[in-house]
Amino acid sequence: MTKAISDSNNSIQKVAIIGASGYAGAELVGLLSNHSQAHICHLVVSENSSSEGKLFSDLHGRFKSICDLPLVAFSSAWFDEYAADLDAVFFATPHDFSADWAQAFLDAGVKVFDLSGGFRLKDASDYPKYYGFEHADKNALAKAIYGLAEWQHDDIANANLVAVPGCYPTASLLSLKPLTVNNLVVENSLVVVNGISGVTGAGRNASLATNFNEVSLKAYNVLQHRHQPEISQEADIAVIFNPHIAPYKRGLLATVTLQLNAGVTSAQVDDAFISAYSDKPLVRLVSSWPEIGNVANTPFADIHWKFDEDKQVVVVSCAIDNVLKGASSQAIQCFNIASGLPSEYSLLNKAV
Amino acid sequence: MTKAISDSNNSIQKVAIIGASGYAGAELVGLLSNHSQAHICHLVVSENSSSEGKLFSDLHGRFKSICDLPLVAFSSAWFDEYAADLDAVFFATPHDFSADWAQAFLDAGVKVFDLSGGFRLKDASDYPKYYGFEHADKNALAKAIYGLAEWQHDDIANANLVAVPGCYPTASLLSLKPLTVNNLVVENSLVVVNGISGVTGAGRNASLATNFNEVSLKAYNVLQHRHQPEISQEADIAVIFNPHIAPYKRGLLATVTLQLNAGVTSAQVDDAFISAYSDKPLVRLVSSWPEIGNVANTPFADIHWKFDEDKQVVVVSCAIDNVLKGASSQAIQCFNIASGLPSEYSLLNKAV
Amino acid sequence: MTKAISDSNNSIQKVAIIGASGYAGAELVGLLSNHSQAHICHLVVSENSSSEGKLFSDLHGRFKSICDLPLVAFSSAWFDEYAADLDAVFFATPHDFSADWAQAFLDAGVKVFDLSGGFRLKDASDYPKYYGFEHADKNALAKAIYGLAEWQHDDIANANLVAVPGCYPTASLLSLKPLTVNNLVVENSLVVVNGISGVTGAGRNASLATNFNEVSLKAYNVLQHRHQPEISQEADIAVIFNPHIAPYKRGLLATVTLQLNAGVTSAQVDDAFISAYSDKPLVRLVSSWPEIGNVANTPFADIHWKFDEDKQVVVVSCAIDNVLKGASSQAIQCFNIASGLPSEYSLLNKAV
Amino acid sequence: MTKAISDSNNSIQKVAIIGASGYAGAELVGLLSNHSQAHICHLVVSENSSSEGKLFSDLHGRFKSICDLPLVAFSSAWFDEYAADLDAVFFATPHDFSADWAQAFLDAGVKVFDLSGGFRLKDASDYPKYYGFEHADKNALAKAIYGLAEWQHDDIANANLVAVPGCYPTASLLSLKPLTVNNLVVENSLVVVNGISGVTGAGRNASLATNFNEVSLKAYNVLQHRHQPEISQEADIAVIFNPHIAPYKRGLLATVTLQLNAGVTSAQVDDAFISAYSDKPLVRLVSSWPEIGNVANTPFADIHWKFDEDKQVVVVSCAIDNVLKGASSQAIQCFNIASGLPSEYSLLNKAV
Repeated sequence: MTKAISDSNNSIQKVAIIGASGYAGAELVGLLSNHSQAHICHLVVSENSSSEGKLFSDLHGRFKSICDLPLVAFSSAWFDEYAADLDAVFFATPHDFSADWAQAFLDAGVKVFDLSGGFRLKDASDYPKYYGFEHADKNALAKAIYGLAEWQHDDIANANLVAVPGCYPTASLLSLKPLTVNNLVVENSLVVVNGISGVTGAGRNASLATNFNEVSLKAYNVLQHRHQPEISQEADIAVIFNPHIAPYKRGLLATVTLQLNAGVTSAQVDDAFISAYSDKPLVRLVSSWPEIGNVANTPFADIHWKFDEDKQVVVVSCAIDNVLKGASSQAIQCFNIASGLPSEYSLLNKAV
Repeated sequence: MTKAISDSNNSIQKVAIIGASGYAGAELVGLLSNHSQAHICHLVVSENSSSEGKLFSDLHGRFKSICDLPLVAFSSAWFDEYAADLDAVFFATPHDFSADWAQAFLDAGVKVFDLSGGFRLKDASDYPKYYGFEHADKNALAKAIYGLAEWQHDDIANANLVAVPGCYPTASLLSLKPLTVNNLVVENSLVVVNGISGVTGAGRNASLATNFNEVSLKAYNVLQHRHQPEISQEADIAVIFNPHIAPYKRGLLATVTLQLNAGVTSAQVDDAFISAYSDKPLVRLVSSWPEIGNVANTPFADIHWKFDEDKQVVVVSCAIDNVLKGASSQAIQCFNIASGLPSEYSLLNKAV
Repeated sequence: MTKAISDSNNSIQKVAIIGASGYAGAELVGLLSNHSQAHICHLVVSENSSSEGKLFSDLHGRFKSICDLPLVAFSSAWFDEYAADLDAVFFATPHDFSADWAQAFLDAGVKVFDLSGGFRLKDASDYPKYYGFEHADKNALAKAIYGLAEWQHDDIANANLVAVPGCYPTASLLSLKPLTVNNLVVENSLVVVNGISGVTGAGRNASLATNFNEVSLKAYNVLQHRHQPEISQEADIAVIFNPHIAPYKRGLLATVTLQLNAGVTSAQVDDAFISAYSDKPLVRLVSSWPEIGNVANTPFADIHWKFDEDKQVVVVSCAIDNVLKGASSQAIQCFNIASGLPSEYSLLNKAV
Repeated sequence: MTKAISDSNNSIQKVAIIGASGYAGAELVGLLSNHSQAHICHLVVSENSSSEGKLFSDLHGRFKSICDLPLVAFSSAWFDEYAADLDAVFFATPHDFSADWAQAFLDAGVKVFDLSGGFRLKDASDYPKYYGFEHADKNALAKAIYGLAEWQHDDIANANLVAVPGCYPTASLLSLKPLTVNNLVVENSLVVVNGISGVTGAGRNASLATNFNEVSLKAYNVLQHRHQPEISQEADIAVIFNPHIAPYKRGLLATVTLQLNAGVTSAQVDDAFISAYSDKPLVRLVSSWPEIGNVANTPFADIHWKFDEDKQVVVVSCAIDNVLKGASSQAIQCFNIASGLPSEYSLLNKAV
């Protein structure tokens, strides 16, 4: 693949963000504005978006003077004119858009980091059930790499199409995988994942459900949320997933309860987490139950657990920022890994 | 006026609420459900409302089992069939609806308590400027009584058409009038009213502006808010009105700064407030700066002031619940007064 | 028992509230101020409280002009002078105070409604472990009736000492008991109760942990919360209880996940809830996942459930106001039942 | 002044933060951790602080792995051992500590950036009235430079002792000074500054007033807040300052109302702001009323104004993050300027 490079520093990658009007897109813009190895060439919105032609910072006033690029509308013509000159594209788009367009970017030599759910589920037959559409590109789906940065490093390093994990799955899998990969969990036992998300998880839109006055704590989509199969797939264990929304803006907590095999010791549980994360700078094993206030606006995942030896039950809780570690900063981790950079590159000193 | 009375207790008034889907309408339903001298006959929504046919408690789950009446759509046919049998109607409607329909209800012998702005401004020429429409009924406008319950008791007692004050004007006027009616304020001086409202003040609707994630503290409509002429009209003094929205649900604070005439004493200021409100059970003269937390979900107005004798400046602050004292409970006060009941009747033991 | 009755209406009961400075105590005052069959004679605070001598409404400005009684300090002298003339006393006190003083009131012929945890656990040996003190009155403990109003009606009706349930246990047990009493749950299976409470659950006090800026969503006391044995005791089933605190003031949600026996049908699950609650006016079986916004400041419990027939798993969620149904309004239910009144008497039209 | 320089890069300055346990101190740590021309040598807390010996990140979990330095206690011995080796010290301390210790650091050749109020008021006699203590060092007070970064650049560049402005004064003065320095305001007219701050403004402490459940919108310290003389001093105009606290964590809004001289035009007003700030990268003249959500967690000040030509009244509103532009990031601006760096150096890519 050859790219026309205008920069003198030829390691700087030219990127576009498709879907820059939403919260995940906006954070991508902020993170990439502060990334010395990436240059934002285009901010793109959907074809009929009312945001077309506005400045990014008109929509997201927080970023005024950080990034004042205009928002352009996606179209085939736009793709034909600009796509081939890119090194990477980030999709913060509807799920079916990703499914429809990922291969075209790949064919143009552009790496794709997809923050939608369009490439997360391996079983194409789950798409009609959980996403409401028939997946348009089962070939691309088969090639996509699940981008849980702390667990799929080598696959991501070689990937051209990365399915950036969902917010709940990120916190849930970071909690579950140390236990499941070490075979500590009783087979076929009930595994309960309770998730609680801030309202940014519902997206940037006009709806009565997200009206300030209407939002209050409640469960939703219990037993039918599309993140349930994603968690089960990647943890390789059936889970019951109970998502909740709570009245705050950013941050997500997953609290997981599991029955461990007879004879599993507290030390084995501790070892499972320590060995998984001691060399992962964006996962912090904290000494008390993690709180949203410590991870909001950061790329970190904070994890704590407690094991009841009488009952052989462990409870694990993981806190992340749903828009960062649960979306945009994890996408940057994937981009970094795929670019040969450290996973956390640029993320600890983020733009406002 | 003769009404067909089916109730054995002929003092119970038959009422309807037009606009029962919004926040003010919902509180009216709650308050009237707990009012022993009123019986809710109809809950009405606008002609093309998506709420038509639903139960009131489907929209406002808080009131489930308190009031489960269906929402019916307003129409001329509805009016012809049901209006004449009512004793009173509450409008929690768009401003122009009130202007259009008040006289018809009056002609049918129904008292009108209008929570919209349709009858608040005396000068009809202000309607195009501040409300965006030409007032359709200048005759009715001339007859309407401004319903600031603590100040217009006798007028309200004899009124058939009451313009229930706006939320900001209620808190502002309760602060200003003791000073202006006693002629304590320097003529033509700058009078600054800073208002801060919770997000319910923006109504129950689907908009990006009221999305939970988008709401934060800011000024809005400064120097052009429609409550500025309403405050000036009723206080009989020009004011600068700076409204703000802040990230909480219910409650409104007005903080007013005025230059008092040379020679006015602290005792005169105190007397002005004490004489105005010592016999008003829903106005509490509190000993520290009033706070929203003490008035939210109550019909009270809390007032405190401080006078700087060096500068002859007084600052007055008044806190109310914008949906209750700033709308629905004040409407009930007006209804009570017009019905010969004490102003605060039923309000201190409100339904949930 | 004979009481000197000064009221002409001899059905009005003379009550005192011990612990009127906290949130549960304050709500008791509000509820009893609006209760036509109760008369508040005394508001009492602990012996060395800084609140002694202040007016109740100085501490709780919301209730100014609703209740302006002074706060008096508890002491043996106070008890000797006033206790015997009471009909009922409400304890919103430290757990050990209840344990120490309940029998003395009982001996004086005063019914005791204890909102502390002092009489909730049947096994006295659990007190050192979960409450940090040796229970001082095991005789009284043996006689205390657990006051889950919808399930212990007949016992409460005949009780002199009622242990009003904790907030988490109330929501959890209302969710669990329809399933456990019908033997639908797999024996020895993992039962996970996730609880989320607003910050009022942490009490009214000065602490860094409850500082506005420090509060954020997190788990706490997992596997060691004192409500875990209370839930297990009353549901007669071992549970894992994961409590969380979230950044809002009032309301509590319990989301419970259970494995049901093979062959249990959706209809059986539905029947269990409907038969338990169809005649209980303060439990609302709602058609979508219950939300805090609908129960905050109300005496209701809202319940919804979903059954996955493939997995034989049911998830139940119950929302309550932690200070009302989780404390004070349930105490009033118990008082009503013990007084021969309907459980919900006076609660639907509460004081502000 | 000669410093022992161990760094190979001799432009990197060695700094200490006195008062690292509070919110302003914590943000200083975060900002300086990300500042390539500063090296944090010591984090210091007060002599008897319970935080002594803990890690900074134990208090402020958000910064875990960003800065895990221990907190050491200030003492004369500490000063004697470490002060002389520093290039700069930041005081986020009680006001009287600054007054007591600034000169000692200056004598040791250490530049002092004082975030307390210890050196803000020029008139020493104001300290007993507004700060409750007699200023201990009137000589140092006379030398201190007020550090409003956009207005005192040259003075700060040459200063050794900088009084970093208060939060309210920063937002107020950025609003007022363009008008006052251009002599647009009517002499001796009423100038009203309404300020609204989030709860971080009340500091990090255990108090009932800042308990999550107790906080609600209210005015406080009206006509007697210590920022009133500070604003008047630096704007050279008497103001009435009405501070409010509102239920959110970070951010501060000042809304200022002024009477302008007859004949002043809208263009003159616009020019005053544009000429003041067009070359100031951290002040953004925004096209709609500024909102807290756009400045929280950023070093920006957003300003908007509206002029009523009929009344010759202008309203200006300025939003800042009270802990950043109102404290810590403005301190870094001062440090940058005094170090010959651009004012905004390092601030746009801040640590989490």
